[in-house]
Amino acid sequence: MLLSVLYIIGITAEAMTGALSAGRRNMDWFGVMLVASATAIGGGTVRDILLGHYPLGWVENPHFLVITCLAGIVTTGLAKWVLKLKGLLIRLDALGLVVFSIIGTKVAMEMGHHAIICMVAALVTGVFGGLLRDLICRQTPLVLHQELYASVALVASGLYLAMLHFGISDLTATIATIVAGYTLRMAAVRFQWRLPSFQLDTEEALH
Amino acid sequence: MLLSVLYIIGITAEAMTGALSAGRRNMDWFGVMLVASATAIGGGTVRDILLGHYPLGWVENPHFLVITCLAGIVTTGLAKWVLKLKGLLIRLDALGLVVFSIIGTKVAMEMGHHAIICMVAALVTGVFGGLLRDLICRQTPLVLHQELYASVALVASGLYLAMLHFGISDLTATIATIVAGYTLRMAAVRFQWRLPSFQLDTEEALH
Amino acid sequence: MLLSVLYIIGITAEAMTGALSAGRRNMDWFGVMLVASATAIGGGTVRDILLGHYPLGWVENPHFLVITCLAGIVTTGLAKWVLKLKGLLIRLDALGLVVFSIIGTKVAMEMGHHAIICMVAALVTGVFGGLLRDLICRQTPLVLHQELYASVALVASGLYLAMLHFGISDLTATIATIVAGYTLRMAAVRFQWRLPSFQLDTEEALH
Repeated sequence: MLLSVLYIIGITAEAMTGALSAGRRNMDWFGVMLVASATAIGGGTVRDILLGHYPLGWVENPHFLVITCLAGIVTTGLAKWVLKLKGLLIRLDALGLVVFSIIGTKVAMEMGHHAIICMVAALVTGVFGGLLRDLICRQTPLVLHQELYASVALVASGLYLAMLHFGISDLTATIATIVAGYTLRMAAVRFQWRLPSFQLDTEEALH
Repeated sequence: MLLSVLYIIGITAEAMTGALSAGRRNMDWFGVMLVASATAIGGGTVRDILLGHYPLGWVENPHFLVITCLAGIVTTGLAKWVLKLKGLLIRLDALGLVVFSIIGTKVAMEMGHHAIICMVAALVTGVFGGLLRDLICRQTPLVLHQELYASVALVASGLYLAMLHFGISDLTATIATIVAGYTLRMAAVRFQWRLPSFQLDTEEALH
Repeated sequence: MLLSVLYIIGITAEAMTGALSAGRRNMDWFGVMLVASATAIGGGTVRDILLGHYPLGWVENPHFLVITCLAGIVTTGLAKWVLKLKGLLIRLDALGLVVFSIIGTKVAMEMGHHAIICMVAALVTGVFGGLLRDLICRQTPLVLHQELYASVALVASGLYLAMLHFGISDLTATIATIVAGYTLRMAAVRFQWRLPSFQLDTEEALH
């Protein structure tokens, strides 16, 4: 129930960031809806396809798709205001990231998968929406060289799994993971924490 | 039967547009066959993966794949003539779009999905082939900012569903949808009808 | 058994080429692991999704994923040495290509698919990893205009199928295919054998 409400907040925020990217590429309304939906529910879709977990969430509950399309279109009308709410969107995006990670972990867990796969499911749910957005909009995927993002999904998932493992109740584990993951992500944005990056200057390619 | 014949015409035309895009990127024969096939049957493939509708059409009937590969290779030899037939290809592409939309609608309908999902299935079948072509060839996806294209798939699908809902026979509904959808698409090309687009000039990104 | 050992060598080599591409895009460690894994096991993943062959190999055996992530990270530390081993990596990549093709052929064969689909499965297993790497790293896919690569997958698959068809034992067919496919690929690199390419200079597009 808590997760459901937070999930809807999360996909709405993600859809808005997707719509802004589409706007920077001068896409039409259909493009805006496509990028908004791919950003918001693309991660969960890729996860379900990788796990063979059918039917997909939005196929079973098409109103999720209606929400992301509407959020995208509304963003085109309110772009100036939305950009002023940048701080709020970053907070909602951080919340969404952790919520998506918990949901991804639960889906893989309920299918009986290994803890590593549960963490991969969290990662895919949290990160692949933004990755799809950047592929469609032809931006170098930002999750691959900005502040800790994918790492937050992994940490949140690991924390949640560990708490369940030690007998903590699902509700407590969920709330604690959300608080910890959100704090980690916001601190990473604030203090620009990054993973070490790998820079190869040579153009001397293998291929 | 009617749909099967039109489907083969549609995938042939789509494969030819794919091959022309591959040629602009100076790809080899394998690249031409890949892009031709992705353009022609990629939409139906993505639809079936999203719906968990196995086996995929071309896996069950590999001759569809043979057709798209051949159409791609033949296009490389006849590129000058094919480009002169631009008007014909645009007409066949419009026909293919509507036929793909009807087929997509039927697949989702037979799986018992909600009308919204049937329309999404039509959209994916009609549009994602061209989207894959543009991703592989690194063009900004054209369906996202040209004349009405995705909208035609949605309108065709909605019209077809509405006619079936009101008890019109499948054959009549199919023919009426093809005529209406084709007319709408060709009018959109002729009069350059477009969806409103969303232009965001600021580079001030969220990320 | 032989195939399993060669498979692990193959995914390690592929993961290293993926990591080098990620380094050229200045990605962080997560990006490196993502691109390494996509390059190494992306082809098999796409094949299994297209065939509806669940669970995916790495979902069932997460240690494959651990291997590719480690190979990627180790490459970032040893990039200078790895680049000096270019010749070895090209040989291991050639070996991986043929091994992946045989595995892809076997998976489709065991599902009872047509020989054409078995060859497509070989192709997808062998080639789509590199294709995903180039899409994520925004390079024009190299398999689409370099020396024979996809063709080697097709030839290896066809040869293997033909030998089984004529009653040759699986082990003999596997070894013979590896030798023949590896030789063909290395000869293609050495003598720069390429498929004819299709160059369309006109910008006069259909769309």
